[in-house]
Amino acid sequence: MTGPPRAVAVLRTAVRHGLRAGDRPVLVACSGGADSVALAAALAFESRSAGVPVGAVTVDHGLQPGSAQRAERTAQLLRGLALDPVLVRRVAVGADGGPEGAARAARYGALAAVATDLGARVALGHTLDDQAETVLLGLGRGSGPRSVAGMVAERTTDGVRWWRPLLGVRRATAREACADQGLPVWDDPWNADPAYTRARLRGEVLPLMEEVLGGGVASALARTAELLRDDLDALDELAAAQLARLAGGDGLGTSELAGLPAALRRRVLRGWLRSAGVPDVQAVHLRAVEALVTAWRGQGRVDLPGGAGALRMSGRLVLSPPVVRGPRPEDAPHTREESHP
Amino acid sequence: MTGPPRAVAVLRTAVRHGLRAGDRPVLVACSGGADSVALAAALAFESRSAGVPVGAVTVDHGLQPGSAQRAERTAQLLRGLALDPVLVRRVAVGADGGPEGAARAARYGALAAVATDLGARVALGHTLDDQAETVLLGLGRGSGPRSVAGMVAERTTDGVRWWRPLLGVRRATAREACADQGLPVWDDPWNADPAYTRARLRGEVLPLMEEVLGGGVASALARTAELLRDDLDALDELAAAQLARLAGGDGLGTSELAGLPAALRRRVLRGWLRSAGVPDVQAVHLRAVEALVTAWRGQGRVDLPGGAGALRMSGRLVLSPPVVRGPRPEDAPHTREESHP
Repeated sequence: MTGPPRAVAVLRTAVRHGLRAGDRPVLVACSGGADSVALAAALAFESRSAGVPVGAVTVDHGLQPGSAQRAERTAQLLRGLALDPVLVRRVAVGADGGPEGAARAARYGALAAVATDLGARVALGHTLDDQAETVLLGLGRGSGPRSVAGMVAERTTDGVRWWRPLLGVRRATAREACADQGLPVWDDPWNADPAYTRARLRGEVLPLMEEVLGGGVASALARTAELLRDDLDALDELAAAQLARLAGGDGLGTSELAGLPAALRRRVLRGWLRSAGVPDVQAVHLRAVEALVTAWRGQGRVDLPGGAGALRMSGRLVLSPPVVRGPRPEDAPHTREESHP
Repeated sequence: MTGPPRAVAVLRTAVRHGLRAGDRPVLVACSGGADSVALAAALAFESRSAGVPVGAVTVDHGLQPGSAQRAERTAQLLRGLALDPVLVRRVAVGADGGPEGAARAARYGALAAVATDLGARVALGHTLDDQAETVLLGLGRGSGPRSVAGMVAERTTDGVRWWRPLLGVRRATAREACADQGLPVWDDPWNADPAYTRARLRGEVLPLMEEVLGGGVASALARTAELLRDDLDALDELAAAQLARLAGGDGLGTSELAGLPAALRRRVLRGWLRSAGVPDVQAVHLRAVEALVTAWRGQGRVDLPGGAGALRMSGRLVLSPPVVRGPRPEDAPHTREESHP
């Protein structure tokens, strides 16, 4: 007896462990494109032996003529894979964040609502190639290492668990798996429309980089992103531990702060300000507060957003006037700035 | 009285602080191209008020017809700027590492030799645009975050101090400063030869990224690299401190190691193996040694390059047989993998 074709086996292997490890049913977010259809098929196959229920949801963005029919055909395909339930959600796309950003925000909002209703986690079809594009987008923003660290395989935001089992799988493999299984896929014309940044990265920038840098660029970008996430997670974890250690009843000791490596100190200060309820902490505020530690020359209060101020008193950093709002649960030392959950 | 033209002022400001902060004479490495000529002119001007002697060296790679005459003309230009001494060094370029790599190795070798002879530090004309290209090259290699962190402004290797004061200055500004001062510059035809990876990054990839990602990409890459260096330096520093704390007479305690964030633990293990003289530690070795801590199931000795082995005994990681060679001074927890000093 022969096994499944190579690409089909790659997809099934990619989802197997994570499917069994979870404790909730899975809902595949399926656009009808090759990546998410291949993901849906792999999860449908593996759900039997894993004993984990797998359903699907397809979002109708209502932006193109015939989008409702397109969503219904995708739903039929998913029902044919024996996924249950299979839901179609129509969303209203706003204007904030440009066409790509607004569609993404509406889509993720709908997915989160369905996942919450069903107590399910959401499986997303992002591939290694999507990861490479995300890294390049982050590089273009220049907002720091975290924006280059790409998408994470598992994340919980606002109680919704997002899962990306295909981040190590090439887009071409997903396409091949669909062809092997006779699954029709829909090539979103937007994906090839060069007006969209991501489409141009995919169609022009990455192929040129592959040619110039000698191949393997998408994998190299994804690998770097993964290693970088480990490094940044370690720093965030160390900063949270330092903040817990240093945060006494009345501020932070400046001599302890001065002894920390700069990148760790800045994370501790950011976490301290955020946990005290200071909103919208920017690099410029952080630098001024840090100077109270590292470039002390008797300077006065540093004004912060929201009306608070930081000052140095008797060798400690304190906040004045105290901000009354308590810490918010999402105020981690480093807020992630990705546009994906 | 009006000041110097804007571009000239930018160059002079870029070198001023670092020139005064150093305690050695400066030797500008000058190819005759716009970047290093602009750097030489700025340092020549600032040297008077700083009271720091500035000389220059130009390297004749002997790879093109007339290269000796070209080097001599550059030397004359530098003497005209009142730099002293102005030296020409002819090098023999080998074949290792491809044409770019071999020329670079020969050039840096000659610069290091002259700097050592004169007790000088070497000023290099790398600009923000060079930094962006270096980041892209590092991304293409995929060898991890450090390879994306670009070039550092100051570094000492083998007793030679390298200084890059122009990492925040655009290449176009350096060119403008040369024009403003009537300084002839030589456009190395190799810089535009698309056979060279860096030349293609410069001439094709970065312009396309600028177009697709909306401008400012070179600055974004350089900014990300700078923030990333801070983060990686912090992790390396924390790992060195942890290693000093944990390294007792007989190995490392596994429970202490298990409590560290993964990226920090791997750095500690790498530093431990290297300081024990284990050569050429690769990711595969590191993973196997880490598994003795994080995935302990009674597994045996992990064979390492150079004949040593790591094993777990009574809750500690130990090396057996002990490697007799002592630690080498360059064995930092993280060896930098840039091709630049």
